[in-house]
Amino acid sequence: MISFMNDYSEGAHPRVMELLLKANLEQNSGYGEDVHSNLAKDYIKRELQREDVDIHFIPGGTQTNLLVISSFLRPYQCVIAADTGHVNVHETGAIEATGHKVLTVPHQEGKLTPDGIQKVLDNHSGEHMVQPKMVYISDTTELGTVYTKTELKAISELCRQMGLLLFLDGARLGSALTCRGNDLTLKDIAELVDVFYIGGTKNGALLGEALVICKQELKEDFRYMIKQRGAMMAKGFVVGMQFEALFENGLYYELGAHANRMAEIMAQAFVQKGYSFYVPVYSNQLFPILSTEVMQELEKEFGFQLQEKIDQKHSAVRFVTSWATTKENIDKFTDFLTNL
Amino acid sequence: MISFMNDYSEGAHPRVMELLLKANLEQNSGYGEDVHSNLAKDYIKRELQREDVDIHFIPGGTQTNLLVISSFLRPYQCVIAADTGHVNVHETGAIEATGHKVLTVPHQEGKLTPDGIQKVLDNHSGEHMVQPKMVYISDTTELGTVYTKTELKAISELCRQMGLLLFLDGARLGSALTCRGNDLTLKDIAELVDVFYIGGTKNGALLGEALVICKQELKEDFRYMIKQRGAMMAKGFVVGMQFEALFENGLYYELGAHANRMAEIMAQAFVQKGYSFYVPVYSNQLFPILSTEVMQELEKEFGFQLQEKIDQKHSAVRFVTSWATTKENIDKFTDFLTNL
Amino acid sequence: MISFMNDYSEGAHPRVMELLLKANLEQNSGYGEDVHSNLAKDYIKRELQREDVDIHFIPGGTQTNLLVISSFLRPYQCVIAADTGHVNVHETGAIEATGHKVLTVPHQEGKLTPDGIQKVLDNHSGEHMVQPKMVYISDTTELGTVYTKTELKAISELCRQMGLLLFLDGARLGSALTCRGNDLTLKDIAELVDVFYIGGTKNGALLGEALVICKQELKEDFRYMIKQRGAMMAKGFVVGMQFEALFENGLYYELGAHANRMAEIMAQAFVQKGYSFYVPVYSNQLFPILSTEVMQELEKEFGFQLQEKIDQKHSAVRFVTSWATTKENIDKFTDFLTNL
Amino acid sequence: MISFMNDYSEGAHPRVMELLLKANLEQNSGYGEDVHSNLAKDYIKRELQREDVDIHFIPGGTQTNLLVISSFLRPYQCVIAADTGHVNVHETGAIEATGHKVLTVPHQEGKLTPDGIQKVLDNHSGEHMVQPKMVYISDTTELGTVYTKTELKAISELCRQMGLLLFLDGARLGSALTCRGNDLTLKDIAELVDVFYIGGTKNGALLGEALVICKQELKEDFRYMIKQRGAMMAKGFVVGMQFEALFENGLYYELGAHANRMAEIMAQAFVQKGYSFYVPVYSNQLFPILSTEVMQELEKEFGFQLQEKIDQKHSAVRFVTSWATTKENIDKFTDFLTNL
Repeated sequence: MISFMNDYSEGAHPRVMELLLKANLEQNSGYGEDVHSNLAKDYIKRELQREDVDIHFIPGGTQTNLLVISSFLRPYQCVIAADTGHVNVHETGAIEATGHKVLTVPHQEGKLTPDGIQKVLDNHSGEHMVQPKMVYISDTTELGTVYTKTELKAISELCRQMGLLLFLDGARLGSALTCRGNDLTLKDIAELVDVFYIGGTKNGALLGEALVICKQELKEDFRYMIKQRGAMMAKGFVVGMQFEALFENGLYYELGAHANRMAEIMAQAFVQKGYSFYVPVYSNQLFPILSTEVMQELEKEFGFQLQEKIDQKHSAVRFVTSWATTKENIDKFTDFLTNL
Repeated sequence: MISFMNDYSEGAHPRVMELLLKANLEQNSGYGEDVHSNLAKDYIKRELQREDVDIHFIPGGTQTNLLVISSFLRPYQCVIAADTGHVNVHETGAIEATGHKVLTVPHQEGKLTPDGIQKVLDNHSGEHMVQPKMVYISDTTELGTVYTKTELKAISELCRQMGLLLFLDGARLGSALTCRGNDLTLKDIAELVDVFYIGGTKNGALLGEALVICKQELKEDFRYMIKQRGAMMAKGFVVGMQFEALFENGLYYELGAHANRMAEIMAQAFVQKGYSFYVPVYSNQLFPILSTEVMQELEKEFGFQLQEKIDQKHSAVRFVTSWATTKENIDKFTDFLTNL
Repeated sequence: MISFMNDYSEGAHPRVMELLLKANLEQNSGYGEDVHSNLAKDYIKRELQREDVDIHFIPGGTQTNLLVISSFLRPYQCVIAADTGHVNVHETGAIEATGHKVLTVPHQEGKLTPDGIQKVLDNHSGEHMVQPKMVYISDTTELGTVYTKTELKAISELCRQMGLLLFLDGARLGSALTCRGNDLTLKDIAELVDVFYIGGTKNGALLGEALVICKQELKEDFRYMIKQRGAMMAKGFVVGMQFEALFENGLYYELGAHANRMAEIMAQAFVQKGYSFYVPVYSNQLFPILSTEVMQELEKEFGFQLQEKIDQKHSAVRFVTSWATTKENIDKFTDFLTNL
Repeated sequence: MISFMNDYSEGAHPRVMELLLKANLEQNSGYGEDVHSNLAKDYIKRELQREDVDIHFIPGGTQTNLLVISSFLRPYQCVIAADTGHVNVHETGAIEATGHKVLTVPHQEGKLTPDGIQKVLDNHSGEHMVQPKMVYISDTTELGTVYTKTELKAISELCRQMGLLLFLDGARLGSALTCRGNDLTLKDIAELVDVFYIGGTKNGALLGEALVICKQELKEDFRYMIKQRGAMMAKGFVVGMQFEALFENGLYYELGAHANRMAEIMAQAFVQKGYSFYVPVYSNQLFPILSTEVMQELEKEFGFQLQEKIDQKHSAVRFVTSWATTKENIDKFTDFLTNL
């Protein structure tokens, strides 16, 4: 069985493991205040082409999301997200558990638009309703689509005009930054949003996300929040070292690009067999629409997930590639598909 | 500079790293539902000599503490702890952030006693005050002391009689189970408490704690809580593998015993120089009382922490050893001390 | 200016004020443990024709809603409501502030249906999403409609079958129980739901809601919750006395019926002028659809609220009557309307 | 049985009831945005001799406390209180339920001192512990003592120097401002603290506290918080009218002074019989130390509460007087006591 279930089935990229092993018996300071974490931060700042950001390494994505939202909002304020947003559907109410409502907008291929945000603002006024104060977007989105620079700029401008914080969830930012249709750089993102994170777990690390706080007013005392939510690792250097390896020489981009390339080959195979897609393919997630028979055949050899039933006989399913997906396995898949 | 600041300065024990490396490119199921996690659970159940417990791997200690307390208490209920308890002083209000008060009792060498617990119960009655419902203890304690079987039994009996849940924080359980003065086994603990955790981070793992839920009524839906608090790792197998390595052949105990041995040599050196201790030495934490001059000399070569000023000229300080402490470094220290 | 803005513009019904005044200098026990509160509970139990319920008097509706939801759900569980539900839109995130998500279903004239509930259940499974555990309905609804016995039974059956708690918000229950189309009694409601409240604030009291807990398992320790959320009044007897006055001789029903009668006269006047309604009129809230010109004329003499813009020239607006609405004022309104 | 159990056994002062009755059938705006609430605010501002404060009427004291603390602190910040503080012991963890720790200092006759506050600050540094950010005091204190101007100034200066917010709980401020030993005015308090409340429930009102926010930065959006916590009354004018009556012509002070006078007569009777006090008597709470026999005799005719067992044969008990305590009942008590 070859799994295309997700992009977190394997451990870490060998170059990441190599550094962990090499530094394993060093004595490092605890709680992320070590030389490796600092080096990793320097490498990331180099990509952003600026020094005036705060970077914190957090073990996981849900934790990063709840940390950001609960730290920067007052109790009665809320966050706007696409209805498909991870914070809305796949975090077991983690945001609400910190006391904040998630207001949703019907997604446009997984994305939010200025219009959608504006409608929420129009419907909220006065103290009998929550106060919208933050916008949450993900790139790539939960449907594998990406924001163009024009799209992100438009959202950013609306947010700044209306006093909303803009938060970008980059759990799959490695794939986003290297995919077809993307024209954003890390530097652009840091300019356009107030806070975002660079996902490690799904792009070559054992675990860890690099949270970047760009807006000056949000920086104060953030380490208190990390500690309080249980997100401050005693051995913070373990995540620091991994981002050191990922950003020292561009490995982060290489891994994202590889995942996208594997997905593209797969997508072409589907196209050649005449299948259509639930949403267009941009990055390392594909959502072909398959007949039940084809699904059953594929399931014998490959792992993938059901996304949504389309009609009695067809479903959209999700295939995911990653830095660890081998060309060999992709070939096995496309051969199998072609011969169906 | 040789650091005795804490027991989380190095990475993982080489045998742990070896397994991580060996299994690195395997495809494993996400969220802790993989074969390595299951194997690790089996190994731990073997130590407990019972099958009817639920085991969950959680990234860190504060997270485990807040998960346990917030999952098993109703909103108005609270937890009783020693005033030195980690949940009371060193978690930035993580427990209160989930809505629960920590009621404290003056510690007895870091420990709680049935008398102390009873006094809290006597002072709380009726709906104008919080309702005590859980007792939190740590073993080893924050002062390096340990509970004897007799002591733990007495607390356990009181808790069962009064309807209190008993939770044991085992962040340093590896050291506790193998130290001078201990007569408890994992099996005993599982019988006497309702929930406890076996600390990995401070005893050979990169990160991770094994939470053991012994009481049947507490098991339901715990994975929802893990997910909601951001503690469910996508690559749960990374922690599973580490506990697999630690419990397959008794490595966990070896590492605790080593740390204790290193501490004992250190302690003897202090005794021979005529120093007294803040609390007696049982495990891998030592609290000698030193003069300011001696502290200043030692600081030139060795890292350690201030615990408490005793008088104008003396302070209690904390030295910690670990699985990674080498005999060579201990010798350097004792030589240095002897020659002061 | 005559206000039809809401049903809480005046103080209390004179018979309520009379009792408050008469008992004003009595010494009563604090915190709702007084003879008046007990008498009021007895009167309500007489209506329910059962003794085995717990009744608590709570100062306000939002407070009652947040108390019920946060007391009976575990942290990862959530409540299902119509998208128009008060807990979803008009409580400034009060429910989320206690840690719980509100899952919404598109309303059917303000009501929930078994189908809508079932769809939410179908879309939620496993620990990566919140767990639906309670259904929230209001009667009358936020749109003035009411549940029939058949409708409530169907929801109740689904809830019991699926292990969901059923909570009925009766802020306007006085109007509901006495309105056209209603065939439910307090006794029926107590049998079909697990917890509900009888609203006083909008039906003759200065303040106060009578919360009725019908399900045995939900009763324990509820007073702790009331106290913790700041909802336990020192002078609880002030609310107790008001419910005593409202339920001693059927005043509660009289007031609801009066409000409905006044609304009906108003509704007929709109009908006779050829206006249609946003939703059919059942109780003390009317939502006629008016042209902008008519709205502007009416605003000169009468207070009412905008509900929703229908098109460029028309809007649905809300008129509310109450126990305090006089026939004289209704006549002034209908005369004015007729002469437009 | 004559009760001296507390100062909330009766309804409202007749002049308060009179206004409620007179305005009962007026149509007023909801949610505290009515003319009576505005008038009451004007009267209070007149006492403060300033316009630049925000005043909100809140139904009860615990609610006011939790609102203030949860609105003005970030999640990791905490409040310092005397160990006897109401927020620490008698609110069922209401503060912790909003996520904040209460750090306690041993009280000095119920009061906090700058030294006590400073010690807490000295013991808290860095992100592994909560961050003290607010000081909570009550006047009168839970033991009936009062702060002098000099004492309050010293605390205020420390708070401003250290960046701590100062919050004064005035549930019994009516008694404090008119008692022996007091040299503070409402104007002084408004200058020295950042936020405080003027208690109505215990000084002549049916319910209600007037929260005064003095510090500019704390004012924004507070009505959102009131609504979210369920503390915004639909008929806010009911509390507004009561404060209108209390502050129009100095009734508030008269009532406090009366309660204190009644307590003083009672205190003298105890002194003449040779009894000592747990703390000196300043205001409307007395804590005589009585033998068990005397307690048993008094209990036959009078209601009071046990404060603390002093030794096998003696206890400190609490007597409370109020605006409603009659000279006649005080005479009955002193006669009874004299004849024991």
